[in-house]
Amino acid sequence: MRPDGRPHDGLRPVRFARDYTKYAEGSVLVAFGDTIVLCTATVEDRVPPFLKDTNSGWVTAEYAMLPRSTHARIGRDQSQRGRAQEISRLIGRSLRAVVDLSFLGERQIVLDCDVIQADGGTRTAAITGAYVALHDAIDALIARGKIARSPLLAACAAVSVGIVEGEPRLDLCYEEDAAADVDMNIVMRGDGNLIEVQGCAEREAFPRSMCDALLDLGEKGLRELFALQGEALARG
Amino acid sequence: MRPDGRPHDGLRPVRFARDYTKYAEGSVLVAFGDTIVLCTATVEDRVPPFLKDTNSGWVTAEYAMLPRSTHARIGRDQSQRGRAQEISRLIGRSLRAVVDLSFLGERQIVLDCDVIQADGGTRTAAITGAYVALHDAIDALIARGKIARSPLLAACAAVSVGIVEGEPRLDLCYEEDAAADVDMNIVMRGDGNLIEVQGCAEREAFPRSMCDALLDLGEKGLRELFALQGEALARG
Amino acid sequence: MRPDGRPHDGLRPVRFARDYTKYAEGSVLVAFGDTIVLCTATVEDRVPPFLKDTNSGWVTAEYAMLPRSTHARIGRDQSQRGRAQEISRLIGRSLRAVVDLSFLGERQIVLDCDVIQADGGTRTAAITGAYVALHDAIDALIARGKIARSPLLAACAAVSVGIVEGEPRLDLCYEEDAAADVDMNIVMRGDGNLIEVQGCAEREAFPRSMCDALLDLGEKGLRELFALQGEALARG
Amino acid sequence: MRPDGRPHDGLRPVRFARDYTKYAEGSVLVAFGDTIVLCTATVEDRVPPFLKDTNSGWVTAEYAMLPRSTHARIGRDQSQRGRAQEISRLIGRSLRAVVDLSFLGERQIVLDCDVIQADGGTRTAAITGAYVALHDAIDALIARGKIARSPLLAACAAVSVGIVEGEPRLDLCYEEDAAADVDMNIVMRGDGNLIEVQGCAEREAFPRSMCDALLDLGEKGLRELFALQGEALARG
Amino acid sequence: MRPDGRPHDGLRPVRFARDYTKYAEGSVLVAFGDTIVLCTATVEDRVPPFLKDTNSGWVTAEYAMLPRSTHARIGRDQSQRGRAQEISRLIGRSLRAVVDLSFLGERQIVLDCDVIQADGGTRTAAITGAYVALHDAIDALIARGKIARSPLLAACAAVSVGIVEGEPRLDLCYEEDAAADVDMNIVMRGDGNLIEVQGCAEREAFPRSMCDALLDLGEKGLRELFALQGEALARG
Amino acid sequence: MRPDGRPHDGLRPVRFARDYTKYAEGSVLVAFGDTIVLCTATVEDRVPPFLKDTNSGWVTAEYAMLPRSTHARIGRDQSQRGRAQEISRLIGRSLRAVVDLSFLGERQIVLDCDVIQADGGTRTAAITGAYVALHDAIDALIARGKIARSPLLAACAAVSVGIVEGEPRLDLCYEEDAAADVDMNIVMRGDGNLIEVQGCAEREAFPRSMCDALLDLGEKGLRELFALQGEALARG
Repeated sequence: MRPDGRPHDGLRPVRFARDYTKYAEGSVLVAFGDTIVLCTATVEDRVPPFLKDTNSGWVTAEYAMLPRSTHARIGRDQSQRGRAQEISRLIGRSLRAVVDLSFLGERQIVLDCDVIQADGGTRTAAITGAYVALHDAIDALIARGKIARSPLLAACAAVSVGIVEGEPRLDLCYEEDAAADVDMNIVMRGDGNLIEVQGCAEREAFPRSMCDALLDLGEKGLRELFALQGEALARG
Repeated sequence: MRPDGRPHDGLRPVRFARDYTKYAEGSVLVAFGDTIVLCTATVEDRVPPFLKDTNSGWVTAEYAMLPRSTHARIGRDQSQRGRAQEISRLIGRSLRAVVDLSFLGERQIVLDCDVIQADGGTRTAAITGAYVALHDAIDALIARGKIARSPLLAACAAVSVGIVEGEPRLDLCYEEDAAADVDMNIVMRGDGNLIEVQGCAEREAFPRSMCDALLDLGEKGLRELFALQGEALARG
Repeated sequence: MRPDGRPHDGLRPVRFARDYTKYAEGSVLVAFGDTIVLCTATVEDRVPPFLKDTNSGWVTAEYAMLPRSTHARIGRDQSQRGRAQEISRLIGRSLRAVVDLSFLGERQIVLDCDVIQADGGTRTAAITGAYVALHDAIDALIARGKIARSPLLAACAAVSVGIVEGEPRLDLCYEEDAAADVDMNIVMRGDGNLIEVQGCAEREAFPRSMCDALLDLGEKGLRELFALQGEALARG
Repeated sequence: MRPDGRPHDGLRPVRFARDYTKYAEGSVLVAFGDTIVLCTATVEDRVPPFLKDTNSGWVTAEYAMLPRSTHARIGRDQSQRGRAQEISRLIGRSLRAVVDLSFLGERQIVLDCDVIQADGGTRTAAITGAYVALHDAIDALIARGKIARSPLLAACAAVSVGIVEGEPRLDLCYEEDAAADVDMNIVMRGDGNLIEVQGCAEREAFPRSMCDALLDLGEKGLRELFALQGEALARG
Repeated sequence: MRPDGRPHDGLRPVRFARDYTKYAEGSVLVAFGDTIVLCTATVEDRVPPFLKDTNSGWVTAEYAMLPRSTHARIGRDQSQRGRAQEISRLIGRSLRAVVDLSFLGERQIVLDCDVIQADGGTRTAAITGAYVALHDAIDALIARGKIARSPLLAACAAVSVGIVEGEPRLDLCYEEDAAADVDMNIVMRGDGNLIEVQGCAEREAFPRSMCDALLDLGEKGLRELFALQGEALARG
Repeated sequence: MRPDGRPHDGLRPVRFARDYTKYAEGSVLVAFGDTIVLCTATVEDRVPPFLKDTNSGWVTAEYAMLPRSTHARIGRDQSQRGRAQEISRLIGRSLRAVVDLSFLGERQIVLDCDVIQADGGTRTAAITGAYVALHDAIDALIARGKIARSPLLAACAAVSVGIVEGEPRLDLCYEEDAAADVDMNIVMRGDGNLIEVQGCAEREAFPRSMCDALLDLGEKGLRELFALQGEALARG
């Protein structure tokens, strides 16, 4: 039995609240159960120095946790900096994989993913919510006539899977994450192709067969997430 | 006419959402109109070095703005550091003025005030909401038998006042704040005594009579805020 | 009785030594009793990025304490950084309130206020001395034909007042400051209008009547400081 | 054809120079072709704070590139910090997966992996070399009677694989890495179980079948690396 | 002719103002002509970690320039950090060479040397003034019965010499320093033995004979400085 | 007897391995006995801001120690920063003394000196090796037609000398360095003129005669180093 009684291959309740704050071009509060992340998309009329004069745009991300988003307070200092940068880079890479940057013009979209409450899977919720915020920001650019057509190539979502008590489980909550023998984050494109796979033995190295089972399970959850993203965007 | 049609001595709609997140000992989302701040209170079983072995507790605060809580994105770097530290210190001083630290035991309560959306008055909303979060955290300490009785001496709230278009106004929104000739933040104790007064000529130095008028106006708003805090805490 | 036998509404001996160092465009050593601050004004032919191409100049300030300006040595590290930035910002705002920045041209005047010895009231001495240094730097600009007429609109001075042993007192020394129930810093323009008021309950929240008494007392001291600034500048 | 004429499933020439420097408890210069990394293992008689009084030891790693280990000089500043921390964390996790920390006693082994020359695959060379340095440091602890028996559970090695010009290739050099559509790093335990899998679409999302092919290819290379590690350690 | 008409082997006017500020255990304003440095000695009842429980004391120094002590304003940021640290280390080493640290007890004396005005030779003035401040701080320790007898072994002074327009000159002012072909700083113990010699070709490498001539010239100046230090201390 | 049986005026075995790494324009591994330093020269088509539009080039250096280049591991943090910056500045000044910067064009050569293994004399080995790397980088510039003729004016080498057990010794190893009463580093130009002399009393101030003896001994060693540099460059 999972802590919340879900089946081993069930997602937690997923919600997307669009237009959550009023200034950002895209602003989505995403919840995967008790994991809540505010994802905002900011459009800036500049690109990083390495893209100057290339006619290419850029998409980047910054991930951070509010100090008391978790059990014990995290200082605002450097202690979580390494982990946060690693996740920021993952989010940025994932979203860039579904954007044709040459259609963005010389502008950059910054995806800020701030964790309001953490209960496992903050990075996967962040990617899944950031896609919706990015979609809204791009729609705003199109609506304002800044770009002619959407540079989005496909949807992008992410989910965690893991082996807990010998069983493959989908979308781990914190309690399961802390007890997992293997933990894997999968980022997928809407067409089912993989963008990123990060599997890690938390306690024990794991056989190839287990890797395969986790990839299967993740794919099932990701198809559901793509549907939920689509519904949220359709509500527009 | 004010941008939202309020009378010159009217507060914006004020809301307190208690238990907003699940880990913090106190967690309050406070809104003054479109200004929204998440205030969490964390109880830690340690005190700063200068209080070691004094049998006194401590209350401190940290204020920060989410990158896209405002019109233009603020980087997570140092650029806002000076202003944020100044406000953090103000919040900490204000709340300490209503706590008998000797009744806290050797523990520290950290008030994190993270601005979700900024529309003027973020520091006054933060103080007003942090008081409610502090109250909840202290109730939790009492409920768990950690302290015998409440070290809270009185309520604490804050409000901004200012001179806009020659008129004294209560609880400025961003648009008014940007246009104000004089800006004043007032922190008050529940019994009507002053904790802190910070008045500042934004455009033009101001006569003493104007200072007096702003103090009067602020007092009116603060009495309303104390009533609203009381109602929120009564809902418990 | 006050520690040095002054009447409750008396300033400490105030001295201004102009041209104290030889390189700065303005260089004033100001003493409020044993509080000694070196204020230098540096003219730079550039403005901060946000003023580029606006034809406006800028005035800014930096405040710091020498490591052994006080009872216990202060490390040169970050520990005092928050307080120093807050005071730096106050000094800058205060002086900008008496300068018509559009008459400065695209240049910036930096007021460095370095505390040589601290005995209470360092920020008010710094503002009062910085005004004299700023005046000298502006005279130098006029003398060199860089600007046609003075952008100074009025004098600027500051003083501290407080409630010590139940009595309102003017220009607190360190011993009084440490014992004060209420502490207030007042920055005033030469015409008697207020630039900034910062009152703070150090021990006990204070009634409005006490706030009024402190403002009255401060005004008396500030009128004396304006006269002393005038005499110092007349000695030129 | 690969740039150096290797078959698609061939490793570059791999060398381990043990006892490369004289102070470290383990010191191995590892080369994967032109990628050269100095891996040192330092034994320290202390553990991180979170392990105090737990009777558990710790293994951690730090990865850095010498400024001119690569085509263009990298400044010693922050610019590569995020990437380096991410790799440091990967190396540390990977090696901890083959150590029974409870057999180390209250001591920490730090694995410093400094890249002398970078030609692709620096992190995989670092892990593979760090294992040999760790083995030597542990042998030294046993020889000095500090620990009774080896806490090493198995060997640990890593290799990169990728899709270049549509073909799965083993152990990419820089030129191939820069041209890869998919890039995957695989860390494996000596018994063939997986420690970490990090696959990433560099250009194009990839189908599950390609993920499987890369895992197969990586396993082949890793078995060869385990044999080479064994030979190097046998030369002792 | 030198800029101020001095003979090639003449010092600038040297003054020591003892007890310049009131809190420090030793506080000396030293002037070498227009170079003015405030040297304070702070006694702290702790030693650096590496001296814990060794019964040895420590003497250390920190050197800094006030922002407008020189022609162009120096930011308070990192830009001068390397030079300042190098000089701080020189001052510390120099003074430690005349102190028997085992007679200090477990305490540290910090010598802060803050340059008020710079006209060449700030580091040599700092060392020469810091010795007088150190002497006063040690006398205070003896007077308070904290140490039985002085740990001072001899006096310590420093002077700059250089080759300007082909001529060896003593105690260079800024204008000469900027034009010097060779620049040498000499730190000497009161008995004429050398503590530190730092000679540097600013423009052109220099023959051994020139090195010898500079050492001779420096020795002459240092004997005068020892006499001036003695007179200043005798005034006590 | 010296630890390795050398005569008091003998150098340790000196080796230069040119083209040690493949990307840098100059790359030399230099060994003075067990002291091993990797010196790379990087040519950059830019100069520091203070040289913009002056038609002058620049030569600068950065020195660092690998964490486990020495007995106890050095953290990658700030602890060695001051010493490393001081040595970096020395290396830069030394090499600039043998380059006519006006012949470099608007480009900068960065000399990175990374200590692989430290056994005393790392800064002198770094200077001596950096000269060879600089020579190779300049030859490359000439070969590529970037500059018409070499801006090198002479060779540059450095050696340490010291008084150990009352005896002047050349090229101290770590064990001797730690036991030395006096320590001197001498940087010399190929024609025998001095570039920099830094002599320091480590334990006891030293008489002028000892200073003279050390300069004599250093000169002997430097002449041998110039010959060895010449041989290494001739092997090219």
